[in-house]
Amino acid sequence: MIDFRSDNTGRAAPEILDALIEANSGTALGYGADDWTARLQQRFSLLFETSVRVFPVATGTAANALSLAAISPGWGLVYCSAAAHINTSEANAAGFFGGGLKLVPVAGADGKIDPAALAGLLAAVQPGAIHRGQPAAVNLTQASDLGAVYSLDDISAIGDLAKRHGLKVHMDGARFANALARLGASPAAMSWRAGVDILSFGATKNGGALCDAIVVFAPELTEGLAVQLRRAGQVWSKMRFASAQLLAYIEDGLWLRLARQSNAAAARIAAGIAGLPGLRLAAPVEANELFLEVSSAVMDGLERDGFQFYRRSASLARFVCRFDLTEAEGDALVAALRRHCTAAQAA
Amino acid sequence: MIDFRSDNTGRAAPEILDALIEANSGTALGYGADDWTARLQQRFSLLFETSVRVFPVATGTAANALSLAAISPGWGLVYCSAAAHINTSEANAAGFFGGGLKLVPVAGADGKIDPAALAGLLAAVQPGAIHRGQPAAVNLTQASDLGAVYSLDDISAIGDLAKRHGLKVHMDGARFANALARLGASPAAMSWRAGVDILSFGATKNGGALCDAIVVFAPELTEGLAVQLRRAGQVWSKMRFASAQLLAYIEDGLWLRLARQSNAAAARIAAGIAGLPGLRLAAPVEANELFLEVSSAVMDGLERDGFQFYRRSASLARFVCRFDLTEAEGDALVAALRRHCTAAQAA
Amino acid sequence: MIDFRSDNTGRAAPEILDALIEANSGTALGYGADDWTARLQQRFSLLFETSVRVFPVATGTAANALSLAAISPGWGLVYCSAAAHINTSEANAAGFFGGGLKLVPVAGADGKIDPAALAGLLAAVQPGAIHRGQPAAVNLTQASDLGAVYSLDDISAIGDLAKRHGLKVHMDGARFANALARLGASPAAMSWRAGVDILSFGATKNGGALCDAIVVFAPELTEGLAVQLRRAGQVWSKMRFASAQLLAYIEDGLWLRLARQSNAAAARIAAGIAGLPGLRLAAPVEANELFLEVSSAVMDGLERDGFQFYRRSASLARFVCRFDLTEAEGDALVAALRRHCTAAQAA
Amino acid sequence: MIDFRSDNTGRAAPEILDALIEANSGTALGYGADDWTARLQQRFSLLFETSVRVFPVATGTAANALSLAAISPGWGLVYCSAAAHINTSEANAAGFFGGGLKLVPVAGADGKIDPAALAGLLAAVQPGAIHRGQPAAVNLTQASDLGAVYSLDDISAIGDLAKRHGLKVHMDGARFANALARLGASPAAMSWRAGVDILSFGATKNGGALCDAIVVFAPELTEGLAVQLRRAGQVWSKMRFASAQLLAYIEDGLWLRLARQSNAAAARIAAGIAGLPGLRLAAPVEANELFLEVSSAVMDGLERDGFQFYRRSASLARFVCRFDLTEAEGDALVAALRRHCTAAQAA
Repeated sequence: MIDFRSDNTGRAAPEILDALIEANSGTALGYGADDWTARLQQRFSLLFETSVRVFPVATGTAANALSLAAISPGWGLVYCSAAAHINTSEANAAGFFGGGLKLVPVAGADGKIDPAALAGLLAAVQPGAIHRGQPAAVNLTQASDLGAVYSLDDISAIGDLAKRHGLKVHMDGARFANALARLGASPAAMSWRAGVDILSFGATKNGGALCDAIVVFAPELTEGLAVQLRRAGQVWSKMRFASAQLLAYIEDGLWLRLARQSNAAAARIAAGIAGLPGLRLAAPVEANELFLEVSSAVMDGLERDGFQFYRRSASLARFVCRFDLTEAEGDALVAALRRHCTAAQAA
Repeated sequence: MIDFRSDNTGRAAPEILDALIEANSGTALGYGADDWTARLQQRFSLLFETSVRVFPVATGTAANALSLAAISPGWGLVYCSAAAHINTSEANAAGFFGGGLKLVPVAGADGKIDPAALAGLLAAVQPGAIHRGQPAAVNLTQASDLGAVYSLDDISAIGDLAKRHGLKVHMDGARFANALARLGASPAAMSWRAGVDILSFGATKNGGALCDAIVVFAPELTEGLAVQLRRAGQVWSKMRFASAQLLAYIEDGLWLRLARQSNAAAARIAAGIAGLPGLRLAAPVEANELFLEVSSAVMDGLERDGFQFYRRSASLARFVCRFDLTEAEGDALVAALRRHCTAAQAA
Repeated sequence: MIDFRSDNTGRAAPEILDALIEANSGTALGYGADDWTARLQQRFSLLFETSVRVFPVATGTAANALSLAAISPGWGLVYCSAAAHINTSEANAAGFFGGGLKLVPVAGADGKIDPAALAGLLAAVQPGAIHRGQPAAVNLTQASDLGAVYSLDDISAIGDLAKRHGLKVHMDGARFANALARLGASPAAMSWRAGVDILSFGATKNGGALCDAIVVFAPELTEGLAVQLRRAGQVWSKMRFASAQLLAYIEDGLWLRLARQSNAAAARIAAGIAGLPGLRLAAPVEANELFLEVSSAVMDGLERDGFQFYRRSASLARFVCRFDLTEAEGDALVAALRRHCTAAQAA
Repeated sequence: MIDFRSDNTGRAAPEILDALIEANSGTALGYGADDWTARLQQRFSLLFETSVRVFPVATGTAANALSLAAISPGWGLVYCSAAAHINTSEANAAGFFGGGLKLVPVAGADGKIDPAALAGLLAAVQPGAIHRGQPAAVNLTQASDLGAVYSLDDISAIGDLAKRHGLKVHMDGARFANALARLGASPAAMSWRAGVDILSFGATKNGGALCDAIVVFAPELTEGLAVQLRRAGQVWSKMRFASAQLLAYIEDGLWLRLARQSNAAAARIAAGIAGLPGLRLAAPVEANELFLEVSSAVMDGLERDGFQFYRRSASLARFVCRFDLTEAEGDALVAALRRHCTAAQAA
């Protein structure tokens, strides 16, 4: 069995669990008033080249939904890609935490928002209109939910548009590290410098274990969010064990190392299957995911071979590369795809 | 510095962190569809002598608020002690997750609900009344927020009363193990057999690290709660690391061992300070907490000595014994209290 | 100026305001415990040929959103037409009152849900799935938001499908009377006998003034809804003035008389413009609305002539017939359309 | 039967219903875009001597809850009297619309907040504390729920305190006119000049019929509130009929005339029963309500005589004077109380 189902089926990076063990000595004040959490603020502020506030939270869904609730009133409209995780996979957590806020899908290729499409929607909003809700925020998934990556210019274009219309910008960075590794950009360039107000930092899918984080660039959001997180059940009393994970995650560039590994695995597979008959990439492979349009027969064959992956439809299969995927595992997938595609063509 | 501020300032039991390391091999399906989480259901069902559903969650606040939201509509009234954690310390998480449900304080000694007081409130409710909300549930904190423990008869009395009025019963078991150790009862006897429908299991304060759990005894609640937890950001994608903690927590009676340690520390201190002048216990010491009525001068003296604890008022101090509190640390507190109380009397 | 903007720009039926004056004598207990509201329950139960509970509410949006909140948990999915009023025009009131419930658009012609499309969506739902929310309810707008009417068979087909999947059915009857008049059906046949559990009764657009109503067919919903309405600010203390309106509305068939008038006006216009060049009906005219595909130039011409209507897009105009629209006003529109369409063709 | 149960059991002032009839001609754009609603803004701005925004709503509960939701985040604490209507009688509407905001009772006599008690609570709040929620707003009921009236100095004292702590002030003016008539103050003096940010205007209890209003003094609140009201189902499409009521209510001082009538009735009764044996006023009679401490036997006697009123406890009875209470009805109550109290004394 070789597992391409998700990056969250993989292990945690050992460094992260080791940090838990190390943090387990002495006493420490609860709910974030400990030394690890203080250090976390400093380290992330350095990392992002500005003073940020980092709130460790349990999951990416919590990070996304609470971020959106912080930048939209309940009557707000949040623009996102139709393919966005917040729209397809989080049981409307954003609507729940956001007191009924509504997600508005925006057209665009490869799971990304097309800035022109967003501009069109915003231009059609009439001032004082009360029947549809009030435009409040934009959500970007970086990397996108189809494995593509917004360029810095893409993000800035959307950020500028948002600012002109008085909207805040949230980045769902479930694969922030993968996108960063792909672009070779700085965390600052891919976030607040491009107009992002609040970020789901996204450790879990990239070798994390039990915590994710919200990174706040807009200081006016922090005081309320701190209380909101408390009552949302997202403030661990033994917070040091969460902060220690996040510190280890970025220590010595671990997070980027892990992201480069999974990106490389995906790229190698993409290269290996280029030009195979009866196979088409549904979106460019720019991070650690591959969306392949292949026949059901090919999918059946792969499953018989012991490959695990998700069928998104009868003709679309998703393969995700974990940081701990081995080169041999990736090559085995290439070989199997080659075999099944060729056989299907012959048939 | 000797830390009596809270049981959540203490370490995690090493066995629990070790379990994380052990769980870190191979791949595992996300969001609870893994082997550890399956095993968790079986082990807890054995432990509770009935088929239960266990949902690991990040914090006790999440466990409490989502449990209450599962057993009360938004227009519901939830009866609890005025001293209950849900009423004093969780930023109204219950009201938030519960869509505006309202907590109704019930009188009683030692942080416990008095069944007669509850019966009086319920008797005064008029059928069809719409102005105050609809009685929906009762919350018990076991051990109580003043360190006392409900007897099995207490719980059954409240459980029976609740059932007669069509109310569900939630137990906030933040110190469930401490109460269990005190009573020498079985988990079943102290929960569903006494009328509890849903339980916050409460590992964190007793040597846990990053997870708590909801234990559901009323099967009709599980399907909806599973989705609600997902959108509440409380379903880890790498759930194995949460379930592994909970498995280790109860393995070989670890949880009861830890609870006995902190209970014993509190009892030893209580015995040591009995009869000191100018000192009174605000509530019986039945778990791992001591609430002492002493003068500000005594508290000042303790702080100068390096003891850390919470001042609940000018004349009330709380001391909590961690599982990892040493006997010497407890004895030092006794000695210091003796010294300061005697000095104060002399003055 | 001749006003085709909406049926809510029209007057109230004088009979309804007269009923207010009549109700203004003596004292009456508040919050619905008065004689008018008791009589309302009886009259509507006769009208619907079953025991119903009627809750007067201020607006159709309140009726819709609170009905949906009564039949869906916060994590529920509510299936509706993409064109449904609840989806396009109520600022996500359903998501707000429903604690974050999510609307799922279902394909279909003329603003109606296609039963086959709904069946397809429901068949694709996997048991136990937690990532998208839980199917909970179906919403039908009768007449549809494009002026078409579901047949009794249409409703039953959707009702049966809903029941098979454990979903409740809400009918948004903003134009219930218009649909009833069109079908010549009984209120029972067009509602609970076809599987409707809860109905927004919809008086405002059809000669009502300041109140609408929720009609509940599923008795298990009433007790909670009564309290929910209270805290939703929808229970008037001087309820007699609301109930009196609703009694007058159905007295001697007033509501159907009014609906027939506006339906007839729309039908007469539709007949008058049949076959005009450069004009196409976007949906069949089965109630009191006409959606016309015409050029901007034609719309400009109508506006210059003093006709008021809504431009839904550059090529789609909506005309709504009020109950108090005169035949001459309708004929004037026909004449103007004829003139402008003919001129446009000649140009 | 003479009805002292509530001021909402009374009739509507005929002038208000007449205004509905008058408004029933021609067509008018929906959802508040009509001439009556425009005029309402002007008339109320004159009345309050500043530019205000008036939102007609269906009920006082809607006015209160939506006002509080506009000035408190979901994690906010709203300080109010324990006797406040929002705390005792609105099924926690404030918690519902306010996304879980929590009401915090403040001590004080006669149903009023004691400024010193409020100051004490606010002084005890620690900056950055996340466990209890964040102080957000103060609610005053004017006249109070025990029939007393805040002086202008009282209100200013609380308003100043609130401003110093960054809190907004909401006045529940269910009996605003009664308090105004009592104080002989201007609407401006009793509201924004004393620090009130948002007001429930309160027509229903004082001769209104089916609408109340929110008056907003803090302009930054209006844009969001307009959308929030829409999705709260509180924006009538035929808004002219609501605005016409409110215009008639203040026309030629009608509202103050009505309030003076009910105030005078209460004062006359209070004077008539002064010094009766076995009878005590629970609070000063400063508006149109009397809270009498009398024996059950006296209450039984009154009920046998045909008087209708509420028993708040075994020894507390509430009598409310409607604007349309006749002098003879009031005198009959005085005579009956005299009779029963004297008889009880003799017994």
